[in-house]
Amino acid sequence: MEKARIAILGASGYTGAELVRLIATHPGMRISALTAERRAGEEMSSVFPHLRHLDLPRLVKIDEVDPGDVELYFCALPHATTQEVISALPRNKMIVDLSADFRLDDPAAYKEWYGHDHLALDLQEEAVYGLTEFYRDRIKGARLVAGTGCNAITGQLAVTPLLKAGVIDPDEIIINLATGVSGAGRAPKEGTLHAEVSEGFHAYNIARHRHIAEFEQEFSKAAGRPVSPTFVPHLLPQNRGILATVYVKGAAQEIHAAHAAAFRDEPFVTVLPFGEAPATRHVRGSNHAHIGVVADRRPGRAIVFAALDNLVKGASGQAIQNANLMLGLPETMGLEAAPLFP
Amino acid sequence: MEKARIAILGASGYTGAELVRLIATHPGMRISALTAERRAGEEMSSVFPHLRHLDLPRLVKIDEVDPGDVELYFCALPHATTQEVISALPRNKMIVDLSADFRLDDPAAYKEWYGHDHLALDLQEEAVYGLTEFYRDRIKGARLVAGTGCNAITGQLAVTPLLKAGVIDPDEIIINLATGVSGAGRAPKEGTLHAEVSEGFHAYNIARHRHIAEFEQEFSKAAGRPVSPTFVPHLLPQNRGILATVYVKGAAQEIHAAHAAAFRDEPFVTVLPFGEAPATRHVRGSNHAHIGVVADRRPGRAIVFAALDNLVKGASGQAIQNANLMLGLPETMGLEAAPLFP
Amino acid sequence: MEKARIAILGASGYTGAELVRLIATHPGMRISALTAERRAGEEMSSVFPHLRHLDLPRLVKIDEVDPGDVELYFCALPHATTQEVISALPRNKMIVDLSADFRLDDPAAYKEWYGHDHLALDLQEEAVYGLTEFYRDRIKGARLVAGTGCNAITGQLAVTPLLKAGVIDPDEIIINLATGVSGAGRAPKEGTLHAEVSEGFHAYNIARHRHIAEFEQEFSKAAGRPVSPTFVPHLLPQNRGILATVYVKGAAQEIHAAHAAAFRDEPFVTVLPFGEAPATRHVRGSNHAHIGVVADRRPGRAIVFAALDNLVKGASGQAIQNANLMLGLPETMGLEAAPLFP
Amino acid sequence: MEKARIAILGASGYTGAELVRLIATHPGMRISALTAERRAGEEMSSVFPHLRHLDLPRLVKIDEVDPGDVELYFCALPHATTQEVISALPRNKMIVDLSADFRLDDPAAYKEWYGHDHLALDLQEEAVYGLTEFYRDRIKGARLVAGTGCNAITGQLAVTPLLKAGVIDPDEIIINLATGVSGAGRAPKEGTLHAEVSEGFHAYNIARHRHIAEFEQEFSKAAGRPVSPTFVPHLLPQNRGILATVYVKGAAQEIHAAHAAAFRDEPFVTVLPFGEAPATRHVRGSNHAHIGVVADRRPGRAIVFAALDNLVKGASGQAIQNANLMLGLPETMGLEAAPLFP
Repeated sequence: MEKARIAILGASGYTGAELVRLIATHPGMRISALTAERRAGEEMSSVFPHLRHLDLPRLVKIDEVDPGDVELYFCALPHATTQEVISALPRNKMIVDLSADFRLDDPAAYKEWYGHDHLALDLQEEAVYGLTEFYRDRIKGARLVAGTGCNAITGQLAVTPLLKAGVIDPDEIIINLATGVSGAGRAPKEGTLHAEVSEGFHAYNIARHRHIAEFEQEFSKAAGRPVSPTFVPHLLPQNRGILATVYVKGAAQEIHAAHAAAFRDEPFVTVLPFGEAPATRHVRGSNHAHIGVVADRRPGRAIVFAALDNLVKGASGQAIQNANLMLGLPETMGLEAAPLFP
Repeated sequence: MEKARIAILGASGYTGAELVRLIATHPGMRISALTAERRAGEEMSSVFPHLRHLDLPRLVKIDEVDPGDVELYFCALPHATTQEVISALPRNKMIVDLSADFRLDDPAAYKEWYGHDHLALDLQEEAVYGLTEFYRDRIKGARLVAGTGCNAITGQLAVTPLLKAGVIDPDEIIINLATGVSGAGRAPKEGTLHAEVSEGFHAYNIARHRHIAEFEQEFSKAAGRPVSPTFVPHLLPQNRGILATVYVKGAAQEIHAAHAAAFRDEPFVTVLPFGEAPATRHVRGSNHAHIGVVADRRPGRAIVFAALDNLVKGASGQAIQNANLMLGLPETMGLEAAPLFP
Repeated sequence: MEKARIAILGASGYTGAELVRLIATHPGMRISALTAERRAGEEMSSVFPHLRHLDLPRLVKIDEVDPGDVELYFCALPHATTQEVISALPRNKMIVDLSADFRLDDPAAYKEWYGHDHLALDLQEEAVYGLTEFYRDRIKGARLVAGTGCNAITGQLAVTPLLKAGVIDPDEIIINLATGVSGAGRAPKEGTLHAEVSEGFHAYNIARHRHIAEFEQEFSKAAGRPVSPTFVPHLLPQNRGILATVYVKGAAQEIHAAHAAAFRDEPFVTVLPFGEAPATRHVRGSNHAHIGVVADRRPGRAIVFAALDNLVKGASGQAIQNANLMLGLPETMGLEAAPLFP
Repeated sequence: MEKARIAILGASGYTGAELVRLIATHPGMRISALTAERRAGEEMSSVFPHLRHLDLPRLVKIDEVDPGDVELYFCALPHATTQEVISALPRNKMIVDLSADFRLDDPAAYKEWYGHDHLALDLQEEAVYGLTEFYRDRIKGARLVAGTGCNAITGQLAVTPLLKAGVIDPDEIIINLATGVSGAGRAPKEGTLHAEVSEGFHAYNIARHRHIAEFEQEFSKAAGRPVSPTFVPHLLPQNRGILATVYVKGAAQEIHAAHAAAFRDEPFVTVLPFGEAPATRHVRGSNHAHIGVVADRRPGRAIVFAALDNLVKGASGQAIQNANLMLGLPETMGLEAAPLFP
């Protein structure tokens, strides 16, 4: 089998590097181009020395990439820029986008949360939301897949099956979430310095994080009526991992049964035995997600947990899982590695 | 002024060491005895080398302490043991207990949560709950003060004033909390190894943590009716600090006003400007607590935050604050140090 | 090709779990037995939840393992116990031992450093020291391979080629080393608690760490005369990774050239460009080692660095690399994964 | 006693904040001005929320400070800028500088290491090097004191007394050092992001760190002949703390005796019992330094350790210790707090 030729646009960030890491041992893909506008001309090994043992193409600018040498683009660029770049790509190429630019169906919602008009409405119409477990069939036939937010997928794995099954009160969903600092990217910021993050747990973007838009869109579809959760993310003093702790009203056993049913055949989502809760260390570095359901002491209430690695299942692993489907490869190809613990 | 002579029972744990650290520069106290049953005979500097510059008494067993040389005992022993030890102390000595043994008024609640009968019911009757901000007047005249749970005080600072002011729905209180690993003590356990904690965020004792008993007791008193919150603690990959993220139903501005009123004159509790949230790094190593209130996007809902250092305001600093009151010293004496950041 | 049947003796420790993690995606091996004396009867997923997605045999005691179902044993047991256990295994089975029990040729050295007589001298005679890069040919034909100490391999990669090439003064070798806490194992100890390790950098076993015995044995062989280095290990507040910083006397460029020559064709050892130094984060979770050489300001002196992951190249990855050779499999099989960063 | 009026120039960095933290409870100093050019006009509590309980002056620009309201300036500005700023201050004010600008006696050395001419040679002539333990008498009468580098003081505490006592070979000094990330400051840089530092131990500025200039200057004075050590610093995944591990040739017991003699009456330097080594966690947040001496297995060699907190004894605590002497206050005033552990 010939390997699919892959370009990664925006390879100098953490999600770009994570794509390279995963594709390095992927039997069905090979990297034909890596781009990074500001670091064009450099070797990938000078940007990411952990990849120095690999034989990789030199970093180039996007307009230096020959589309004839690319079957599928992974696009790991900032939002807004992304819409411009993808608009300029040939329309016969497959694209998996990791930015926020094609996640929201409704241009008004996009404008509300991202502060400017959507610049590629025609592309938005063909984009499929990249939460593989819920949109697998559409992703298989898609040309453009919009990867989910890393927090957004975590909350959705915990909540969406419960709304579909009608086992929780859709007006009483509280998503408390904590995320590792790699989700904030590699651009230097005071708030992500080691001296600030270590011993420094705190909430951020409280009740106004952009991933709320994804929750509202997807939860409303699942429930068949408008649903808006409370969402508070926190920044963890650790590099990787997201844990969502979701407070819901419903019967805990029914909730657990709904999860078990929804994810029964999923290769990457494990529902823990009733009463057990996941930990970020048990999914680190892998494409696995762990779901747990625990009954509250108060009748009619339950706590639902979801844990995953923000850079893998929350971003680059998810992107490869979707690309596998788009390319007709086995869905789990290249993603079989077990979590790294400790 | 002669300094009050202090004994610390259980000086080989983290809260014991923290008492020594704080008393070392306290102008009104001096340490006359330190006990540690298993390490009796050793110098404190061999157990805690960070205290080696201090001139401290050698560790002894409890029955080697001369009560004639003690005015006030800090008791930092495990629960159950504590009841026996305190029962055997002379009845004319002041005691600040840091264990769970005298926190619950109701012996039935004690038995339910701690698994055995209360062994010192007469002492329980005179014990005053040690949350200084709410029981200051009773603590001033108390002989036996029961320090709060470290999680328990954090949740109570966030919630109790709101129940007293009647500005939140008492049936809809969800306390999501994350705590540093020093709260789990110095006894070696697999779950608190660095290799397990680092990168390993997870919940524990979900909806069945013993501090729920304190919440139920104190919240019910504040509300004048039974109140039972949902409570889920999580273990942070950091040493110190607790952040409670509390989801309530009520008007956010009214909630903020209730906090501002309740803590207006408190030396150690700061209510942040409306819309701001605290971080554990901003209280680390100090007796300060920070409270924040943020409105949810959903009308009629708010998120209340409280942050403090579990070993100081959550344990040993609180104990000294109470001892200051019992001894007739200025309440803030020895506790003025600013937080250590970074 | 039929996969080689593998037993892992001592699967409840970190190196045991790491063997399982790596074998899980190894195309040439499958696990037929996992042992853990104290946890026999349990599922591996209850001991290591990060492996719960795998279909693994239940933990058993060593004497429950059917040798007929095993071609190669990985032995990840404490020292001394190991000699007894391996002595009792059938003599026609291949064994890769991860303990210290068969590393030292000289029984007197073993007794000096490990405090008791060697209990299996006949096995010692056939044991081959498992530093693949230096003993590859002998390992291919070995039945019993003794994995190196994790610190020991790090220092040897940095120093041994220089002694062989005669480019440094053998009497002036100072190995300063820092290691992640996972190397201390999963048994709970005060010294490896998060609260003690975090922010707590310090040296340990100063100038008397047992891996000195390996250095003396191997360096002396390489130099053809007795060589004894100074060796001071330190405990890092991180989970994985070893960095050796070695101070030597010699011409830095010649040293770099000797390294480049020694490791030119090695799949897992990369010599960085002259003047560059490695970081533990760039090898984390992988079987790769990075070597760097920097000239000191003082003429005739150089600093040599080696970085690797203590649980992979320093233990379980090395063990699999050796097992691959013993089983006639490609040496890199199952070890191709790139490092996990961040 | 009236408190001395203090201005802190450069209060928006970590050393500036640390000065404020320490002065907040200093009985002999009060802050009359805080400057931060880019954040002038802001409250200190918005830059450093951990100081929000303090009543502090608003941040201003340097030229807004009224010298009439200042007796002593702490100058925590970048190098080069510092020379200009201090040159413009009235010549009758006391100054404790925390930058590198006045540490080197020799303008040629300054130019070599800092890349440009010294801009205030007259001030350099009156500057006293701020290593209190070695220059106490001159500091008492100084107007301008140049604080040491944080790495520089750590190495000097370990080595200088040995050179003075003539108990080590001055040509064979190797200073291996590891430092917490707060030493790199608060300006956002990729290399100090949490995601890069955590699990990422590595050396930096190998054999060319600017603090070598201080070592050469001070060691040569102590030895009465030119001395140049090897110096390799490493970046620790922790916020605070420096540990120097120094390899020397000499008799270990004599070395220990020389340390014991040199520091016998020092309030902030403790020499551990022979054979014991310090840890950064045991000095964290305090002005204490711990020294340890261990014999190497190889005769005639020893390992000397020094541990201190880079932001306290390595910078702001040292500055206050010096200011106390200059102001005629007790040397330990305001610096008595015990280390914060864990």
